[in-house]
Amino acid sequence: MEVLQKIADNLLRLRERKPLVHHITNYVTVNDCANITLAIGASPVMADDIAEVEEMASFASALVLNMGTLNARTIESMLATGQKARQRGIPVVFDPVGVGATSLRTSTAKQIIREVRPTVIRGNMSEIKIIAGLDVAIKGVDSVASEDAGESVASNLSHKLDCVVAITGKTDIIAQGNRIYRIDNGHALLSQITGSGCMATSLIGCFCGAADDWFAATAAGIVTMGLAGELAHASLQPGDGIGTFHIRLFDAVSVINPDILKKGGKIDEL
Amino acid sequence: MEVLQKIADNLLRLRERKPLVHHITNYVTVNDCANITLAIGASPVMADDIAEVEEMASFASALVLNMGTLNARTIESMLATGQKARQRGIPVVFDPVGVGATSLRTSTAKQIIREVRPTVIRGNMSEIKIIAGLDVAIKGVDSVASEDAGESVASNLSHKLDCVVAITGKTDIIAQGNRIYRIDNGHALLSQITGSGCMATSLIGCFCGAADDWFAATAAGIVTMGLAGELAHASLQPGDGIGTFHIRLFDAVSVINPDILKKGGKIDEL
Amino acid sequence: MEVLQKIADNLLRLRERKPLVHHITNYVTVNDCANITLAIGASPVMADDIAEVEEMASFASALVLNMGTLNARTIESMLATGQKARQRGIPVVFDPVGVGATSLRTSTAKQIIREVRPTVIRGNMSEIKIIAGLDVAIKGVDSVASEDAGESVASNLSHKLDCVVAITGKTDIIAQGNRIYRIDNGHALLSQITGSGCMATSLIGCFCGAADDWFAATAAGIVTMGLAGELAHASLQPGDGIGTFHIRLFDAVSVINPDILKKGGKIDEL
Repeated sequence: MEVLQKIADNLLRLRERKPLVHHITNYVTVNDCANITLAIGASPVMADDIAEVEEMASFASALVLNMGTLNARTIESMLATGQKARQRGIPVVFDPVGVGATSLRTSTAKQIIREVRPTVIRGNMSEIKIIAGLDVAIKGVDSVASEDAGESVASNLSHKLDCVVAITGKTDIIAQGNRIYRIDNGHALLSQITGSGCMATSLIGCFCGAADDWFAATAAGIVTMGLAGELAHASLQPGDGIGTFHIRLFDAVSVINPDILKKGGKIDEL
Repeated sequence: MEVLQKIADNLLRLRERKPLVHHITNYVTVNDCANITLAIGASPVMADDIAEVEEMASFASALVLNMGTLNARTIESMLATGQKARQRGIPVVFDPVGVGATSLRTSTAKQIIREVRPTVIRGNMSEIKIIAGLDVAIKGVDSVASEDAGESVASNLSHKLDCVVAITGKTDIIAQGNRIYRIDNGHALLSQITGSGCMATSLIGCFCGAADDWFAATAAGIVTMGLAGELAHASLQPGDGIGTFHIRLFDAVSVINPDILKKGGKIDEL
Repeated sequence: MEVLQKIADNLLRLRERKPLVHHITNYVTVNDCANITLAIGASPVMADDIAEVEEMASFASALVLNMGTLNARTIESMLATGQKARQRGIPVVFDPVGVGATSLRTSTAKQIIREVRPTVIRGNMSEIKIIAGLDVAIKGVDSVASEDAGESVASNLSHKLDCVVAITGKTDIIAQGNRIYRIDNGHALLSQITGSGCMATSLIGCFCGAADDWFAATAAGIVTMGLAGELAHASLQPGDGIGTFHIRLFDAVSVINPDILKKGGKIDEL
């Protein structure tokens, strides 16, 4: 109850402050990330050239680094901007898309974690296990790892890296040290469109950009995305499929309010 | 009345000629720009490699330069293609996204204006004021500048740069020297999705690609975008949000016809 | 009848195997390509940096190369990955977007064909005729070539390059040597959105990734796309336009099943 109130307060503060959220992200889901940022009430800036990224980060309220389609040029920009953001004290939310799938992704994720020290890391179970140094099977950028023991994986990694760790999947787990949230919102259709994970990361960035408590802000982002999935699914008519579901996610996020979050959020503190 | 007739004629000519509109644009809204170009009846080409852009511009009917996610590689392409397009006498429509937000954007916009001499410049009030050398507060790529005195800002800049200047916002203002249009179409939801500005610029490119009078063609593009926002909003059902609104914009542009423009266009010549 | 049964079997196998389909594609329609891949039941990976593409191709089930917005960096990646894929024996589906429009596109397409030896080439009539060395008028990236004699064009090119050749248009033609399919599914609205061709190519990649018979797999991809166009059109309400049609394509592909393919597929073996 108290947790949901905190999440609802986070939404009010986000909509009041309209944080500017700088993204260096991939070209597959970048439009979705920008629109979900607007839908929740924040302001997106997408810029990735080394000649301007540090300046952009100098007036942003949060930075999202997403390595979905990383390349030599954008890796350099992510590192420089991430360090700049941390110097300024603004939160950096890192989405290690596909870490473990290739050595470039694994080494880049490690370098970003080492040199930027993200405030929040969000990934699926495979990605987080890889970052934690555990053995997992990898198939492209989708998770095939077992979701058992997520709490200890998240908590241990959070201790080790001194950051909030969020694992999204059937059940979502968020850890900040020994504090753990389990979130049971969401819908299976979210895994049948591209960008659900990226948008969850962007929403975390939006909430972090208007908050001081990054654990609660991360929970707010993930509850919002999960609830949007449920609302989008509930709105489908016979014959509707993933195209309509995809669009309905933006509808849902744009109409979500504190009451909907408090009524629909399914979150437990362990 | 006479203005709206001219705009309606522009639409007929566009659909008859199906101009090829070459874009060098950003990766956030590029899909929207291509689809809005198709929706209005023109043909989009997106190409940005220096090894082919001048050749692409050599058979295009208009060129759109949009610096939403500029980088060293695409800046070079914009400059070379822009000059080529002007040599050929085809219109160049420039969207200085986020000018003023970073020094890279400001210097690039100045260089494009100086070396390409665009036919039309479209921006929000902050962007146009920055280009005019006026003092404005900047917050990322969204406008926070006062919309007062837009007519004189647009007219003065038009005189100075010898081009059509369009400022979009609550009220849109278009100037070609002392000639000024005020347009009152549009809907507040347009500012809650990414790409409204970019799509307006693309529509201007489409109309310019089939016209000789670039002042009227610019007005046609902006009236079309604003009216599409109104029609999209009017079609929403309870529970619909910005996702459905976004999709309905393409629906609206694809079904707009001269009658709809003449009945719904709200444009005054000052 | 037998052909449609084969196509239906291909769909079952695809959904059982969920092949990972690696794309090196353009930034205009990449989101559509990823979502159509998920809609049909496969798994997309988009990665284009030379430092990881060969590794990504080493565990993919199929590779899609689409030169919609090619540049020096991605051309290098396409060539290296394509060769790697062929060494591994996985199918490579090539979409020579806009070949003939610029000399960069023409020389790149030739180089990819020579060095990669694609398994399937899909293009519109202009693109395939250019690759076949025939004279055609070019207007940007859209086809303006006559659709006469498509069977002999496709068959001759298939013999020459020892690959499956697919020409999509009002009627689609697929050739593998002397074997030819004509497909009469589809809807005119497919040419009024961007990405129909790219998505058809992605679907071919998905089917090829789960099949051994690449002729049938290519037919399955093209019938699916055409049928999705028909279903999307049939679902439109008054006032709907290309925005809703675009979204409905994903709905249709996500709900298509073997029965729908067998009832709706219009395919003849010549």
